[in-house]
Amino acid sequence: MAMSEPVPLCVLGLGLIGGSLLRRAAVDRPAWGWSPGERTRSAARADGFQVTGSLPDALAAAVAQDALIVLAAPWPAFDELLTAVAAGAPETRLTDVASVKVPVAELVSQRAPAARYIGGHPMAGTSHSGWAAGSAELFSGAAWVTTLDEDSDPDVWADVAELALAAGSRVVPAEAGPHDAAVARISHLPHLLALTLAQVAADGSPLAMALAAGSFADGTRVAGTRPELIRAMCEANADALVPALDDALGLLGVARASLASTGSLAKLTEAGHAARLRYDRRADGLTPITLTGPDLLEQLLSVGALGGHVSAVDRSAGLSATGWTPPLDPD
Amino acid sequence: MAMSEPVPLCVLGLGLIGGSLLRRAAVDRPAWGWSPGERTRSAARADGFQVTGSLPDALAAAVAQDALIVLAAPWPAFDELLTAVAAGAPETRLTDVASVKVPVAELVSQRAPAARYIGGHPMAGTSHSGWAAGSAELFSGAAWVTTLDEDSDPDVWADVAELALAAGSRVVPAEAGPHDAAVARISHLPHLLALTLAQVAADGSPLAMALAAGSFADGTRVAGTRPELIRAMCEANADALVPALDDALGLLGVARASLASTGSLAKLTEAGHAARLRYDRRADGLTPITLTGPDLLEQLLSVGALGGHVSAVDRSAGLSATGWTPPLDPD
Repeated sequence: MAMSEPVPLCVLGLGLIGGSLLRRAAVDRPAWGWSPGERTRSAARADGFQVTGSLPDALAAAVAQDALIVLAAPWPAFDELLTAVAAGAPETRLTDVASVKVPVAELVSQRAPAARYIGGHPMAGTSHSGWAAGSAELFSGAAWVTTLDEDSDPDVWADVAELALAAGSRVVPAEAGPHDAAVARISHLPHLLALTLAQVAADGSPLAMALAAGSFADGTRVAGTRPELIRAMCEANADALVPALDDALGLLGVARASLASTGSLAKLTEAGHAARLRYDRRADGLTPITLTGPDLLEQLLSVGALGGHVSAVDRSAGLSATGWTPPLDPD
Repeated sequence: MAMSEPVPLCVLGLGLIGGSLLRRAAVDRPAWGWSPGERTRSAARADGFQVTGSLPDALAAAVAQDALIVLAAPWPAFDELLTAVAAGAPETRLTDVASVKVPVAELVSQRAPAARYIGGHPMAGTSHSGWAAGSAELFSGAAWVTTLDEDSDPDVWADVAELALAAGSRVVPAEAGPHDAAVARISHLPHLLALTLAQVAADGSPLAMALAAGSFADGTRVAGTRPELIRAMCEANADALVPALDDALGLLGVARASLASTGSLAKLTEAGHAARLRYDRRADGLTPITLTGPDLLEQLLSVGALGGHVSAVDRSAGLSATGWTPPLDPD
């Protein structure tokens, strides 16, 4: 395979994310999938995709074509899948699409230690699930986090980054721990607050439900996601989610005490509003950056930690990446 | 004025809600506004509306035309406005558009006890404010709560209901206390949770802000509202908001303990998801209903408490209302 050819893709698990990934990858490269579900396989084949119910066959094809294997099954299946990968494709290029990254990295190092692993978290989704809900366009405009450390394989990082970029995502490099802490605050905590809000309203009067609209509808939207998916995501990130939840409980507790004693919500309203404005303005002032050289992975991690991202990868003369970064701190 | 003629409208305060109301009312009836702001008056006049900076003049016109007066200024101005109403138009038909109803009803009974008052809360808005943000279409499709008790004047209720229906709203009759308890849960609590979520994310890493999207954007949208507006709304409803906040803190605290000890979020995810489904299905099974007779106000309150609403008012042979109600409890 020439460096400029997209890496072939072997997708293990064909739900919303895996199914969308297979659709997108098949546009520009050899791509095949494995699913344990007969109905999923039939549906995917009917849509014109190459799928198998045999995990050894899927892995043998990955070895034969030097493919990138993507773990796209639910997290509880990872243990079994990684054991199979270690047996059938031990030194494979490997990534995944799970929403929590520290537990995956730990399990990979235990079950498939020779695999050249780069973590992946495409931050795209809908409240639907399964093959039928997928789309080749699902990742367009999304952040696709790639988790790595300084011992990772830069070529495999480039494989994953190119896959994400081809799918229309921006690539955010991060270490696994900071990634998990970040998504606890911006994805998992929002789910817990949405579930709580829905229940507090439903525990009120029928009048409350009849009047609910705007702020309630927005604030509870993700409570419509299947509860087993929310549980799987949040429970797997318990170590990072508990501190985020404690921060929320602390802020709400202080606001409650202030409202009940002095009648004032000044502190929460001002700080929360300012925080939301920071979000609205987070893309202001991003400047272009080019990263290259032997410490490329270190540079990537620095840019990601600042809130920057990668928008292109070039392998024509060594490996380099271009992207956008917030202004460096002048201090 | 014949019964079939829309009641003339005197709007005190020309911000987002008052300005939108003046625009809509002027379509089908005599309507004028008062504003203390020179720039607001100029803008409204330039748009072709009749406005004055003299409160006594606005009130004298209301008496002369037997108008419905609408308090549409911010809540802190109500005390002064009601004192002026008691002096200039003591027995007027009176309503308001404030989002909290018990404190308004109490203040009306103190400052303008002879006014024929029906509380109003059109549940429409945007994150913008001021005359320029208004629109005659603002109320279309919204719930417009009318608060009353069994001693209220049915004819004034009908005036307010017809105004709301003409603006495209559905009319929800309620007592003031249950209204305030309901909006604490479905409007004010969502604002506090949104502000909290925004701050917890901003207190995380720059990476967290860079990855924030979907669930965070939805969950914090209303934190973008001007903090002084959120404060005014929530602080005025402290008596109902503190218990709602306590319910939220209780659910989150239990979930936190369960996540930290057993790793499970089963209870919150299942109950919260079921609650959101109840919201999605709240309009299922509504059946048509006609209300009439001497206990009309009592019937209206029953329908509103069940989660129903009024969609038409008829004054041709006595006063009757038609609308929609959830199925009555078979017990």
